[in-house]
Amino acid sequence: MKIALDAMGGDFAPQVLVEGAYIAKDSLGVELVLVGDEAKIREIVGNRNIPFEIVHTDEAIEMDEHPTQAIKTKKRASLVVAVEMLKAGKVDAVVSAGNTGAFVACASLILGTLPGIERPSIGVTIPTLKNPVFIIDTGANVDCKPNYLYQFAIMGISYSHNILGIENPRVGLLNIGAEETKGNNLTKSVYPLLKKLKNFVGNIEGNDIFEDKADVIVCDGFVGNVLLKFAEGFAYTFGKVIKDFIVDSSIPRSARFFVDSAINNAFSIYDFSEYGGTPLLGVKGICIVAHGRSNAKAIFNSIKVAKKSIESNLLKEIEEGVTSYVG
Amino acid sequence: MKIALDAMGGDFAPQVLVEGAYIAKDSLGVELVLVGDEAKIREIVGNRNIPFEIVHTDEAIEMDEHPTQAIKTKKRASLVVAVEMLKAGKVDAVVSAGNTGAFVACASLILGTLPGIERPSIGVTIPTLKNPVFIIDTGANVDCKPNYLYQFAIMGISYSHNILGIENPRVGLLNIGAEETKGNNLTKSVYPLLKKLKNFVGNIEGNDIFEDKADVIVCDGFVGNVLLKFAEGFAYTFGKVIKDFIVDSSIPRSARFFVDSAINNAFSIYDFSEYGGTPLLGVKGICIVAHGRSNAKAIFNSIKVAKKSIESNLLKEIEEGVTSYVG
Repeated sequence: MKIALDAMGGDFAPQVLVEGAYIAKDSLGVELVLVGDEAKIREIVGNRNIPFEIVHTDEAIEMDEHPTQAIKTKKRASLVVAVEMLKAGKVDAVVSAGNTGAFVACASLILGTLPGIERPSIGVTIPTLKNPVFIIDTGANVDCKPNYLYQFAIMGISYSHNILGIENPRVGLLNIGAEETKGNNLTKSVYPLLKKLKNFVGNIEGNDIFEDKADVIVCDGFVGNVLLKFAEGFAYTFGKVIKDFIVDSSIPRSARFFVDSAINNAFSIYDFSEYGGTPLLGVKGICIVAHGRSNAKAIFNSIKVAKKSIESNLLKEIEEGVTSYVG
Repeated sequence: MKIALDAMGGDFAPQVLVEGAYIAKDSLGVELVLVGDEAKIREIVGNRNIPFEIVHTDEAIEMDEHPTQAIKTKKRASLVVAVEMLKAGKVDAVVSAGNTGAFVACASLILGTLPGIERPSIGVTIPTLKNPVFIIDTGANVDCKPNYLYQFAIMGISYSHNILGIENPRVGLLNIGAEETKGNNLTKSVYPLLKKLKNFVGNIEGNDIFEDKADVIVCDGFVGNVLLKFAEGFAYTFGKVIKDFIVDSSIPRSARFFVDSAINNAFSIYDFSEYGGTPLLGVKGICIVAHGRSNAKAIFNSIKVAKKSIESNLLKEIEEGVTSYVG
């Protein structure tokens, strides 16, 4: 099993990619290839052994570049080279914390999408008090046509069933009211399409996400991305507010340690920045999209997600699921 | 001071409107007019005294009706009659928990909007660890043109400065990346417009909302509404997760009471469903939009918001603020 890392992608590249690779190498037993500027990578390595392969390239795509323009003009960008290696069968997966739009465009163009899928998509599994909820899309597609959301639903059902183990995943549409007539132009157009799915449960409002009303919740990638990041910031603030109330209360000092650790445990569940990457669904290859702000631990976690995706045969599972819907 | 209630608007109308009116009457010392089906209102009143006026009408706008169609065909709907009374100067404010789209359309058509404002807007004040943040729009406008968001920003600045007391409110654009080039078509078009404001601080990501980077955060009403409702559901779930960790810990039983009450206190801060209404900014009259699921306490809180808006001269403050920007 061999995994390529886009060593130049992400806010803290190549530092965290190199350090993440060292952690992964020690504990995951996977072969790694770092694609990027060899001199810079070796500088970070210092006088340590190099337990991974380096494929040199001096081009890289920046975070603020226009995705399709960048991949057309920078044929030797680390991201492009890594995805080409995946296409050629030289590696089994690619991990990148770089420009998400460029990763999505690059994977679509080079690897191609599954039949019936126009846009690949990323989702995130949110833990609730009952079953995990899979929210899709969370940032791969910020301007969506109604068809895309239907396709996200199909990919979400496959993921929820085959990877999360939910028997008959229920699909909900993230919306601002319970009634079919509610919503913006996009959700109002998507609703009739989703009705074709036998497990469609209708609109899900923001407060219903945790209420076990749907296993797969579909939205455009702008809304999904704002929501996930909001959850991180809110969890931190909410925990802090509780701590302040505790400090003001007559709770014994000795008990405060337990409260602090309970809050920190709860926070770590919703700290998606440490989660590591999430697979790009709908392309013909395993591509793991990591958070741009990933630290070494998050990169390590992303490599773990890549390994798990390979082992669980993610690609075949999603393809079979999608095919059964597309017909 | 006289406030009209749309007695037929909301998921639990007219019950909660009547009960909310009783609570308000006792503690706020305002005159109230309930506009709606007199027989139904009297049935709920039972053999109690009636400390408010009733204006009878047998039409009402349902939650799932198309807003503009409804207000055109139902000239005697409780909402329409209430707003007409405001226009005629018979009352000083209107509170409705009914169809938000219909309320917005009705207020715009009957009362008119301020110069330079195409669409009125609602916002919500979110408590953070430092200053309160005003998020606008939170549901009045679900499909937005770039100009609308610029106008939301202007109204948000006026509200933040004149009502929340922030000296020089900083404006941020809710977005999915820090760079100007990031976002969906809408936010990419809005960015250059917002740059005209001297206190524009750029994009704000979901996790930055609580980080004191902006005092006014602008978004379309779909995103804003999903976010607020998500906060409610998440606060509840997050609190429950912490409680579960506490139960599993070796914290003394006697201390658990304090933890529970700290969590409940924190939750009540972010339970927007109890907040009561929020003023519809940009129309020539004080209109308070209450949550569709309002209970009697939330209706009471909405009446309190109406009273405070009248007392703080909200209308004049917003008009002066907007005029100073529109020129």
